[in-house]
Amino acid sequence: MQAQLSGQLRRMIQTGELQAGEHLPSTRELAHALLVSRNTVVAAYEILLGEGYVEAELRRGFTVNKAAQAFRAMPLRPRERREPERAPSLPAMPVPFRPTQPDVHLFPLPIWNRHRTRVLRKGANLLQYQSRFPVGLDELRSSVADYLRDSRGVRCGWHQIAITNGSQQGLFLLAHLLLRAGDRVIMEDPGYPGARNAWNHAGATIVPAPVDDEGIRLAGGEMPDASVIYVTPSHQFPLGACMSLGRRLSLLQVARAANMWIVEDDYDAEFRYTSLPQPSLQSLDEHGRVIYVGSFSKTLCPGLRLGYVVLPPALVEPFAALKSTMDDYSPLVDQATLAAFLDSGGFYAHLRRCRRRYAERQAFFLEQIERRKLPLKFPVTGRGMNLAGMLPEHLNDERISRRLQTAGLDIPALSRYAMRPVRPGLLFGLAAFDLKQIREGVSRMAPVFTAAFR
Amino acid sequence: MQAQLSGQLRRMIQTGELQAGEHLPSTRELAHALLVSRNTVVAAYEILLGEGYVEAELRRGFTVNKAAQAFRAMPLRPRERREPERAPSLPAMPVPFRPTQPDVHLFPLPIWNRHRTRVLRKGANLLQYQSRFPVGLDELRSSVADYLRDSRGVRCGWHQIAITNGSQQGLFLLAHLLLRAGDRVIMEDPGYPGARNAWNHAGATIVPAPVDDEGIRLAGGEMPDASVIYVTPSHQFPLGACMSLGRRLSLLQVARAANMWIVEDDYDAEFRYTSLPQPSLQSLDEHGRVIYVGSFSKTLCPGLRLGYVVLPPALVEPFAALKSTMDDYSPLVDQATLAAFLDSGGFYAHLRRCRRRYAERQAFFLEQIERRKLPLKFPVTGRGMNLAGMLPEHLNDERISRRLQTAGLDIPALSRYAMRPVRPGLLFGLAAFDLKQIREGVSRMAPVFTAAFR
Repeated sequence: MQAQLSGQLRRMIQTGELQAGEHLPSTRELAHALLVSRNTVVAAYEILLGEGYVEAELRRGFTVNKAAQAFRAMPLRPRERREPERAPSLPAMPVPFRPTQPDVHLFPLPIWNRHRTRVLRKGANLLQYQSRFPVGLDELRSSVADYLRDSRGVRCGWHQIAITNGSQQGLFLLAHLLLRAGDRVIMEDPGYPGARNAWNHAGATIVPAPVDDEGIRLAGGEMPDASVIYVTPSHQFPLGACMSLGRRLSLLQVARAANMWIVEDDYDAEFRYTSLPQPSLQSLDEHGRVIYVGSFSKTLCPGLRLGYVVLPPALVEPFAALKSTMDDYSPLVDQATLAAFLDSGGFYAHLRRCRRRYAERQAFFLEQIERRKLPLKFPVTGRGMNLAGMLPEHLNDERISRRLQTAGLDIPALSRYAMRPVRPGLLFGLAAFDLKQIREGVSRMAPVFTAAFR
Repeated sequence: MQAQLSGQLRRMIQTGELQAGEHLPSTRELAHALLVSRNTVVAAYEILLGEGYVEAELRRGFTVNKAAQAFRAMPLRPRERREPERAPSLPAMPVPFRPTQPDVHLFPLPIWNRHRTRVLRKGANLLQYQSRFPVGLDELRSSVADYLRDSRGVRCGWHQIAITNGSQQGLFLLAHLLLRAGDRVIMEDPGYPGARNAWNHAGATIVPAPVDDEGIRLAGGEMPDASVIYVTPSHQFPLGACMSLGRRLSLLQVARAANMWIVEDDYDAEFRYTSLPQPSLQSLDEHGRVIYVGSFSKTLCPGLRLGYVVLPPALVEPFAALKSTMDDYSPLVDQATLAAFLDSGGFYAHLRRCRRRYAERQAFFLEQIERRKLPLKFPVTGRGMNLAGMLPEHLNDERISRRLQTAGLDIPALSRYAMRPVRPGLLFGLAAFDLKQIREGVSRMAPVFTAAFR
């Protein structure tokens, strides 16, 4: 009742029906006129008083606040929507052969939920503010350190691990931590656009370096004076090369000599099908120049938004301070659940299962391409979630990618990832699609290639 | 088996036992010597070949890669930990009277989990990459818009809502979107440190503006040329004033005339105990100068890390682009769950319950203070999760806060939030603590005050 009454009076003040300085009727009068209790009117006046629309003067009752005059100058617009509202859209699954998508149907949701329930049963602490953990729950940092030591040869204590919202936040934080406007970053070209965006946001200049089948190729003598080198040594994004030991060692020496940071993005190293994964570049680093970036987006699922950075000890504090300023800390229930999942061994079982499926899908895809004699060459196979397929030199990969899109396929051109002209090619993601989708996808590709050759 | 063998050989190369260029024994010889199958040896050699430790020469078998020589110059350090590892620590509950902590025990976890289960049953889409939703799931944006229109008078279409990792990320994004290094930001003083950190990170200069019982007081004629004014009009942080209508209207006029953005942080407006909440400043804005920032950290629980920003339409695209660069998008399962929870009305029931409890706790606290005749004045009561308690002028609030800490209490001094000298006082958070904790907390405060007056 009082809300209705105060709302009505508020509107009358806003529209100027009640003028600044004007007396409101006494509570007794208004109660009588409206056939409501006097308490209701008193309550309504008090609401307007609290909001500043009216003033109370001793013995004179309530008057409309003079400040409300200013308000009249601004006509009250109805709450119309200025542009027609689009209908909200729903998240959809990726279309073949969108790169770097895991198969989220393999994610062991029931097991995950059991860990989550157990973790929540321990108490409400995870729900409360925990600003002491800007770089993640200690227990998760410790489980991730164990995992990285065992499986990637990473040398670190748990306090060097920082949990981030996916690896993208790790890259963004590093960009703002390590770079000043105008600094240079050497990047593989073609390379990962997410990293490029992060460096660009910090105002850095990107120096593209070519990539061959041993990984990034640094021009020996004429090395630019850079602050950071960004590399994907296990499985170069997007071409797929694994950086050779020679290149790794010389990269470490160069970084040390020039006092550069190396950011190693190990985005899908877990997926090797024909050999064991090569240890990380970080594992060879004797001088704390390598910052290791990884993610559970590919190994578990992207929806969790859980990534990590392994920092040299001196960078942990500044990284944590920046993360606090940026978003305080990341959601905790999933962090605690992931720690339990890692410690239980469930994660390793899940990885084995994914590896088996992804290997099968890659092999099947290559078989289908072979059978249809499509003009694609795959220089690097046997690992990763994606395959770079090289096209004959005279074809325009952007044009082919657009035509594939018209045929209902999502296959980006390699030149999309490049700053300088590169050999034409396409990037195929295979992990998220089952054999039926792969067969159908390849069969839809065939006419596009036939047309391109005509 | 092959992993063991390749590991042993790798170590021999790393330590220099096997020299660069040296021939490895033939697979037949080694198999014979080690009593393993030849296939095992071939597999081990292939692993090392893949990793770049050895080279294969036609008809000459395997030799140690020359690049491995460089490696020898770097002595292989054992994986010792350079500093002793701290034991991981566990998240704990806040100590009385830590400000701005909700009571997470009131969070309706079973209801939340039911919504979550239902949302996950719809399919795996929420688990997959959804880079199309950098500013949140459309369905949540739409539910939040409904809520803000109904309860805070916010005027917006759903496409103006951006979901962030708590309000802190909203502030950080706005800082980088609206400010260039050297720009000025006018802030209430005392004010919210999280906002200050965000403006500082973007390189802005902070201009502190005093606060009285009508909110921020802008010096009329000599207004500095600022880009942003940051205010907490519903419940000034930390002093508690509700900005008067007059101040609101003049603030809007100033912002329009000087082409400034107003960032309205409405961090705990939902908690009014003696009157209805005053509509937001944004609801009075006719010229799209107000950016409205809010959070579910106080109304639901902080562990979710879910906040939102209501943007003028022209800022939506740039905000989304920056959020993509920063961390792609925020976790989706909780977003979909929250949308369902809002739409079901469960959120409103939860708010009513919290309001009842928090009102009771605030009243009980004031009663206890009164009974013990502690030298504290509370100018603003009846709303919010915190109470600012003013001390007699001659006392040093920092010193008292430190002494309270020794007594096991977490009660920050008001001067901690200020850039310029302010009246001494303390900030008490009451929402998270039950009546027993409040009684015990106040009784532990008493001797500290007695000592301070001695």
